[in-house]
Amino acid sequence: MPDRRYASWMDRLRVALCQLDTVVGDVGGNAERVLSGLARAEEEGADLVAFPELALTGYPPEDLLLKPAFLADNLAALSEVAGRTSVCAAVVGFVDVVGTEDLAEAAAGAAGAGVRSREAAVRGAPRLLRNAVAVCAGGRVAGVYHKRLLPNYGVFDEERWFGPGTGPLGLYTVGGVEVGVSICEDLWFAEGPVGALGRGGARVVVNVNASPYAVGRLGERLTLLRRRVAEAGCPVAYVNQVGGQDELVFDGGSLVMGAGGEVLAGGAQFVQAMVVADLELPPAPRAPSLASTPVSGPRPRREPLAPPPLPEPLSEEAEVYGALVLGTRDYLRKNGFTDAVVGLSGGIDSSLVALVAADALGPEHVHGLSMPSRYSSEGSRTDAEALAAALGIDLTAVPIEAAHRALGGLVAGALGAEPPGLTDENLQSRIRGVLLMAVSNAKGWIVLTTGNKSELATGYSTLYGDSAGGFAVIKDVPKTLVYRLCRYRNDVAGRALVPEGVLTKAPSAELRPGQRDDQSLPPYEVLDPVLDALVARDESIAEVVHAGFPAEVVERVARLVDSAEYKRRQSPPGIRISAKAFGKDRRMPITNRYLDRSYVPPVPSAPAGGDRDGGPGE
Amino acid sequence: MPDRRYASWMDRLRVALCQLDTVVGDVGGNAERVLSGLARAEEEGADLVAFPELALTGYPPEDLLLKPAFLADNLAALSEVAGRTSVCAAVVGFVDVVGTEDLAEAAAGAAGAGVRSREAAVRGAPRLLRNAVAVCAGGRVAGVYHKRLLPNYGVFDEERWFGPGTGPLGLYTVGGVEVGVSICEDLWFAEGPVGALGRGGARVVVNVNASPYAVGRLGERLTLLRRRVAEAGCPVAYVNQVGGQDELVFDGGSLVMGAGGEVLAGGAQFVQAMVVADLELPPAPRAPSLASTPVSGPRPRREPLAPPPLPEPLSEEAEVYGALVLGTRDYLRKNGFTDAVVGLSGGIDSSLVALVAADALGPEHVHGLSMPSRYSSEGSRTDAEALAAALGIDLTAVPIEAAHRALGGLVAGALGAEPPGLTDENLQSRIRGVLLMAVSNAKGWIVLTTGNKSELATGYSTLYGDSAGGFAVIKDVPKTLVYRLCRYRNDVAGRALVPEGVLTKAPSAELRPGQRDDQSLPPYEVLDPVLDALVARDESIAEVVHAGFPAEVVERVARLVDSAEYKRRQSPPGIRISAKAFGKDRRMPITNRYLDRSYVPPVPSAPAGGDRDGGPGE
Repeated sequence: MPDRRYASWMDRLRVALCQLDTVVGDVGGNAERVLSGLARAEEEGADLVAFPELALTGYPPEDLLLKPAFLADNLAALSEVAGRTSVCAAVVGFVDVVGTEDLAEAAAGAAGAGVRSREAAVRGAPRLLRNAVAVCAGGRVAGVYHKRLLPNYGVFDEERWFGPGTGPLGLYTVGGVEVGVSICEDLWFAEGPVGALGRGGARVVVNVNASPYAVGRLGERLTLLRRRVAEAGCPVAYVNQVGGQDELVFDGGSLVMGAGGEVLAGGAQFVQAMVVADLELPPAPRAPSLASTPVSGPRPRREPLAPPPLPEPLSEEAEVYGALVLGTRDYLRKNGFTDAVVGLSGGIDSSLVALVAADALGPEHVHGLSMPSRYSSEGSRTDAEALAAALGIDLTAVPIEAAHRALGGLVAGALGAEPPGLTDENLQSRIRGVLLMAVSNAKGWIVLTTGNKSELATGYSTLYGDSAGGFAVIKDVPKTLVYRLCRYRNDVAGRALVPEGVLTKAPSAELRPGQRDDQSLPPYEVLDPVLDALVARDESIAEVVHAGFPAEVVERVARLVDSAEYKRRQSPPGIRISAKAFGKDRRMPITNRYLDRSYVPPVPSAPAGGDRDGGPGE
Repeated sequence: MPDRRYASWMDRLRVALCQLDTVVGDVGGNAERVLSGLARAEEEGADLVAFPELALTGYPPEDLLLKPAFLADNLAALSEVAGRTSVCAAVVGFVDVVGTEDLAEAAAGAAGAGVRSREAAVRGAPRLLRNAVAVCAGGRVAGVYHKRLLPNYGVFDEERWFGPGTGPLGLYTVGGVEVGVSICEDLWFAEGPVGALGRGGARVVVNVNASPYAVGRLGERLTLLRRRVAEAGCPVAYVNQVGGQDELVFDGGSLVMGAGGEVLAGGAQFVQAMVVADLELPPAPRAPSLASTPVSGPRPRREPLAPPPLPEPLSEEAEVYGALVLGTRDYLRKNGFTDAVVGLSGGIDSSLVALVAADALGPEHVHGLSMPSRYSSEGSRTDAEALAAALGIDLTAVPIEAAHRALGGLVAGALGAEPPGLTDENLQSRIRGVLLMAVSNAKGWIVLTTGNKSELATGYSTLYGDSAGGFAVIKDVPKTLVYRLCRYRNDVAGRALVPEGVLTKAPSAELRPGQRDDQSLPPYEVLDPVLDALVARDESIAEVVHAGFPAEVVERVARLVDSAEYKRRQSPPGIRISAKAFGKDRRMPITNRYLDRSYVPPVPSAPAGGDRDGGPGE
C-alpha cells in the first residue's frame, strides 16, 4: 500500500521506456540488452523501466515456442535479469509456463503428433504457455501478468501458442504508487483490462508492445491511447519494440500519455531509445479496489526532470522510407550479412532499392550489377551509371547477350522450335536472376530483390527472374509510392540521387523492342487504387466499379491477382509497410476456383494477360 | 419424437456417406457435387446423406472467408441445395453467418484495417462466422449445428475465422431416429460434444470431416472413433473429404462404426465414394434428455442392404503413394493443367516423381527432360532413358554444356575471376531450372519439382535450380522413404519401372567429378531419423544424442535445418504426407538466432557445410 502520509501531495514516478531492438531466439543476447537498459534506467534514477513485449525471446518467436529447451532458456534468462534488479522495478516480457513444472511435457504436448500428442497439442501450448511480463525489483520477481487479449488475425497467430490470462486483476506498488501492467492487444479494446486497472485504482498503467509498423498506425495508436486513458482515468506509459524481424518492422514510437490525453514524452520512430519522464500523480481519490503487490518503495524526493523534447512527426514518405531502411538493415545484420548486390536496370524500382540499401548499409557495402540485353536502351545504361555514381556504390556491367544466345539455343533444342515471345522475355529475366545468385554465392552478398507491390499483386514479374533474391525490400510498396519515395529521398539529399530521367520515362521491362508496362497493365495511377480496394479492403468487383473504376479494368485486375498467388508463394520475404501485405496478412489458397460474379458486364469482356510468366499455376 | 409404437423393434436407419472431392472457392460446382450425391442417396433409399465439412466452400477456404460476396454465394448455395431435398435428409457443410443480416458488415469487419475495422477485425470474423452443417429435408433447412471445437494448431487456423458453437446441444429426428451431428475436431476430445450427444439421447452421431492425410492417421482415427463410440453408446457415422488442396491431401476413409466399436461399412482411401449402410438400432432405453427437431419421418420398411465389403487396408507405402498420386492429379486438374514436365537426372528422386506423375496424369501427359552436364555419368543418362521407356513417357535430351560455358563466362565477368566450385555447381542446377521453366512457359506444362524432404530440411539443393517448379511432389518424403516407394511401385508393376541401377547406386548431384551426397550429408539412414526427432518431434540436440546418434552429426544437422529456413520459404507447394511437414505445420522465423546448447561437446566441433547454395540467408 502507498504511504498515505503523502496523500495530499503529488506523488512523482520516474518512468523509463526502453525501446529495444531485440533478436528473435537470441535469449542470452536479449537478456544482455535488457540488463543494459536496466543499468541505464537505474543511472537515470527511474522508479520503473519497461521493456517491449516478449523482450527475452524476441517477437514473434513463432514455433520456437514448441521447443522445451527454448522455453527453459527463456525462464533462466528471466531469473538472471530479476536477480540483477535493485531499486528500479523492471517490467520484462517473457513466456510463462503454467500448470506444470515439466517443460518437456509442456512442449512435447505442444509439438508432437499422434493421438496422445495431438490431444496434448491442442491443449498443450495454449493450456501451458502465456504471453507474460514479470515485474521485478530487489533481486526477485514480485509478480507476473498474463496478456488477456490475444490477437489471432492479420499477421498474428497468438492463439496458436498462448492461452489468455484469466482470474482477478492486480496492481503493483512501485515507488509508492499503484501501477497496472498490460500487454499490447490489451490496449485495443474498450472492455479490456486497461480501463479496469484504472477503475480498480491504478495511478499509471504500463502497456508493453510489439506493434508492427504500418502506414498510419501511429495515429491509430494515439487515438486508442486517448480512449484508454479516458477510461482508466490515469496516465498510460506505452513502450514498443523497434527493429526488423523477417517481414515485420517495429517502429518504436514509445510514449507517455497524461491523464488528459496529452503526450508528455515520446521516443522517435525507427531508432533504439530510452524515454524517461517524471509523472506527477495526484493523490488517489479513494483506496484502490484491486489488491496491490508491494514491489519497491519511494525513492527520496529529487529535482524533477525537465520535460524531454517530443520527436518531430514524420511525413508519410519519411516514415515508410525509415521503415524500409531499418527493415533492410536489420534483416541483413541479424542474418549475418554485411553486403548486398542489386541488379540495376536503370528503372525506378531498382533505383529505390539501391537508395534504401545505401542508407541502410553504407554505399561501400552495396554492389550494383547492370545486365543489359539486346533490348536495353542506352538511357537505361546511363541512368544506372548516374545512380551508382550519385550514391557512391560500385557498378559492374555484364551484358547478357552471349548467355541469351546460348540458352535460347538450348531452349530451341528442348522445344524443337524457336522460343515464343513470352518465353524469350522470361529467359532474359532468369539469366539475370542466375547471374545475381552466382555473385551472391561467390561473394556472400545477399541479393536484394527489386519487385514492387503492384507487380507482385498482378504477377507482372518472372518467377526466378526479377523476383529472385534473399530479401524483397519494396514488395509491399505500390508503384505510385515508389515514385513518391524516390522524389522524397532526392528532396532530402537536395540533389538528384535518382536521375530525373528515371522519374519521368515510361516504365518498361525492356524485354522486347518498344515494350512498356502500360501495354500489359492499366496505368499505375488506376491500378494501385484498384488493388488497394480489391486486396487490402476485400471489396467485390461491383463495389470497385461502383467507386468509379472501369469495369473491364477491375475484372481483369481481380483475375490477375488470383492467378498470381502461386508466384507470390515463392517470393522472398520483404518489408511490410501496410496493414495488409501479401504474406501472413492474406492467406489465400493457390488452388482457388472462386470467381467474383458481383459485376455482370453488359457484353462479355475478352480475357487478357498481363503476366510476364506463363509458367506453373496458370 | 420417434414413434414409440415401434419401441420394441429395432429401428433401421439407412445412412449414406458421400466422400466428395470438392474444390475450394467453387461454390456453384460444389453445390452441384452435393446435389448429385443427394440424388444418388435418394436412389439408394437412404434416410440420411452426410457430406464433408464445409462441402459448399471447399476446405480450407482460408481468407476467402473475409470476402462478403463469397459468404453470400455460400449461403445462396445452401438455400439451393436445401430447396432440392426431399425425403432423404442431407447434412451439408457450409459457413454460417450469425448475429447480423448484413454480410458486407460481417466481412468488412473481418477484413479491414484502421482502428474501427481493426476492432471489428478481431471480433468480426470469429464473432460472426461459424463452421457449420445444415440438416435439410423436405425442401428446407430444418436446423443448423456449429462446430464447437476449433483446431488452431499444426496446419489449422480455424480461430482466425470462426467462433465456436455454444448454447445447448440438440438432436434431429431423421427417419424416426434421434440423430446427433458434429464436425471433425468435435470428435477428437473426450469432453467434446460426441459423448454428450450420445448421453443426451442420440441413437447415431454423424461426424463430418475435412481431415488431412498423414502416415498413420487412419489408425488414429479408428482409435478415437472407438473411444467416442464407447462414450456416446451409439454408432458414429464418419464422413471425410477426399482430394488434394494445395499442400493437403484428404484421404476419405469414411466409415460407420457400430456401438460395439466394429466397423460396419467403409469407403476406400483416395477415391470418391459413397458408403451406404443400414444401421439396426436398438430401442432407446429412455426418452432423450436433449430436445430433438423433427426432420423427416420413417420410410416404409424395406429389405435390409447386404453389408458392403470393407476396403482392404493399405500398406504404408501404398497409402503414401496413393496420397502422392491423388495430390498431384488434383493440384494439376484444379489449376487447369493437363501436362507436366520433369527434369530426369537418372537419380532416384526424379524417378519417383515421374512414376507418380505417370500414374496421376497418364504417361502421355508427362514429359521428361534430360539435361546432362559435363559431369553427368553415362549411367545416369541411360537410367533416365530406361525409366522413360518403361513408363512410356517422352524424353528430350538437351546437354547444357553450351549454356554452362556461356553463363560461366558471364559470371567470371561479373566476379572478375573464375567462379568458385560451389558457385559453379549452383550454376549448372540453375541452368536446368531456367530450361524447365522455358519449356513450361512455351508449352503450358507445369514443372514438377523433384526435391525430397531430407534435402529440403538440410538445404541440400539450389534455390531456383533443382528447387524450381510449380509443384513439389515429394517435398514431404524423406529420402529413405523415396527408395521404399520406388521398390513398392516396381513390385506392383512386377517389373523394374525404376531401373535397378537407380536403386543401388550412391546418391549424387553430379555437379562436380566424383561427387556423392554422403560427402556433404550424413548417410540417409542416419539423417532421416535425426531429422524426424529434431523437426517432427522438436527434440533438443541432447535428447537426440541420448537416443544414440553421434553428437557431431546431430549438431550439424540442427544447424543445417535452421539455416535452410530461407530456402524452404521460397519452395513450391507440395504434398504433405506427415503430421509435420515444412510449411503451415512448422512456422519458424527465418531471422532466428536461437542456438540449442543442450548438448555440450567434450571438444568443440568444427563447423561444416552441407549446403549446395551459399546464397541469401547465410
